Amino acid sequence: MPFAYTDREVMLYALGIGLGQDPLDPNELPFVYEKNLKVVPTFATVATFNARPAPGAAPRQGLAMNFALFLHGEQRLTIHKPLPVSGQMTTESQMLGVYDKGAAKGAIIVQQSVIRDKSGDAICTLGNTGFARGDGGFGGPADGAPEPHPIPTRPHDTEVALPTRKDQALIYRLSGDRNPLHSDPDVAKIANFPVPILHGLCTYGHCCRAILQTYCDFDPARLRAFDVRFSSPVYPGETIVVRMWKDGDTISFEANVKERNITVIKNGRAVVQG
Amino acid sequence: MPFAYTDREVMLYALGIGLGQDPLDPNELPFVYEKNLKVVPTFATVATFNARPAPGAAPRQGLAMNFALFLHGEQRLTIHKPLPVSGQMTTESQMLGVYDKGAAKGAIIVQQSVIRDKSGDAICTLGNTGFARGDGGFGGPADGAPEPHPIPTRPHDTEVALPTRKDQALIYRLSGDRNPLHSDPDVAKIANFPVPILHGLCTYGHCCRAILQTYCDFDPARLRAFDVRFSSPVYPGETIVVRMWKDGDTISFEANVKERNITVIKNGRAVVQG
Repeated sequence: MPFAYTDREVMLYALGIGLGQDPLDPNELPFVYEKNLKVVPTFATVATFNARPAPGAAPRQGLAMNFALFLHGEQRLTIHKPLPVSGQMTTESQMLGVYDKGAAKGAIIVQQSVIRDKSGDAICTLGNTGFARGDGGFGGPADGAPEPHPIPTRPHDTEVALPTRKDQALIYRLSGDRNPLHSDPDVAKIANFPVPILHGLCTYGHCCRAILQTYCDFDPARLRAFDVRFSSPVYPGETIVVRMWKDGDTISFEANVKERNITVIKNGRAVVQG
Repeated sequence: MPFAYTDREVMLYALGIGLGQDPLDPNELPFVYEKNLKVVPTFATVATFNARPAPGAAPRQGLAMNFALFLHGEQRLTIHKPLPVSGQMTTESQMLGVYDKGAAKGAIIVQQSVIRDKSGDAICTLGNTGFARGDGGFGGPADGAPEPHPIPTRPHDTEVALPTRKDQALIYRLSGDRNPLHSDPDVAKIANFPVPILHGLCTYGHCCRAILQTYCDFDPARLRAFDVRFSSPVYPGETIVVRMWKDGDTISFEANVKERNITVIKNGRAVVQG
């Protein structure tokens, strides 16, 4: 599916994950101002929101599942070359596997998308794992989904605290994910949350900020992979504390909400270069 | 010139003028969330940023003036019917007059644009006055520019304090006005400002919020006109205090920066209905 974005989408995403709150910070300004613009690698997770099937393409096959019980469980990103600040690209998605954890637990759905530039070069590969809680017991294989990245048992090496704003989800959602669970108080209550929750991928972007500032000197080109498992939602206004462990080029990380001491991101794995 | 916008632009503008900072506020949420979306009338001042001459249109005539010494002096807006939440429209601009205040003071340039919907109905009329400080003494008429609205001499009836954020200009500029004076610390210094300044039209939008909440019960359809004169810039992070006087349907207003006690908007005039 073809899609396009401009530097406006790149900057809007960066503001959505809380970059540039101090507009005089020389490390963050390049992510939110078009002069020598830097692209946060996790922008890839929202870049394809306006992707549509090319004219004449075969129709997409739907998934006959209960979407109301579907959860975004894991997000993976492998970066092959830096994302440009704007461009026309394609994304090609593929189902890697569907695993059956039984009627009580549900099904695990593993998908992958590859983003390519006009020359056909792969820019990045996005992977995600969904938990279709209402669709287990269909008789498929139980095992085969990606194993979660193990976190070291030693105390973490360092941590970064990133406050979010109460309106963080309202800015973030303009990057494409308009699920009303993140904006509508009534929808949030129906889903048993006291208030609208932050997008999991917005928390994911905050974690990427922590890795960029701690281990990449704010150079997006040094980040090569960024994988997480979502474990609990953040409420807008809370502080996300990212705990990190470095072993060679691999950074392991977790994220906690400071105000409630709840783990929101588990099994985080980043690969950094240099 | 044709142009178009979607609800995304409408919501991004509202966030840019600071609406929705409390996402549970039932008065402000409808401006930043697409369910029953309300359009801030001053959105009209940014809606046409992507307007381009229609194919085959006569080329625009340029102005042979010194743009480095040009200042946006006044903004006027008359609303004929409420702006839709999205649409394809046209804008037609016209020079109303150029007045000569002498070589020492400069020239005053008065322009007007009318925005029309597809049916040809006028939605609103935008007026602006520019001060071309380097272009006086050309021998034109001295008088004829619109007179500023007089502010009552009695104490103001009420006031509203609206804090801005340090990154207010970074969000606002994604609505179209990317003048680096509002984002680039180096450009700000060259222009003799300690830091990048807020867009005058962002301050204008904040004043509109004050009128909407004080005299319109947050109903944009009740605002019929909104005119100001700019007198000094706001620095992002400062608090804009809007002082208001009501006389029938006419609201007079001024805006001050709380931290420096400086008037930033003078001769404000709003017309409200009901």
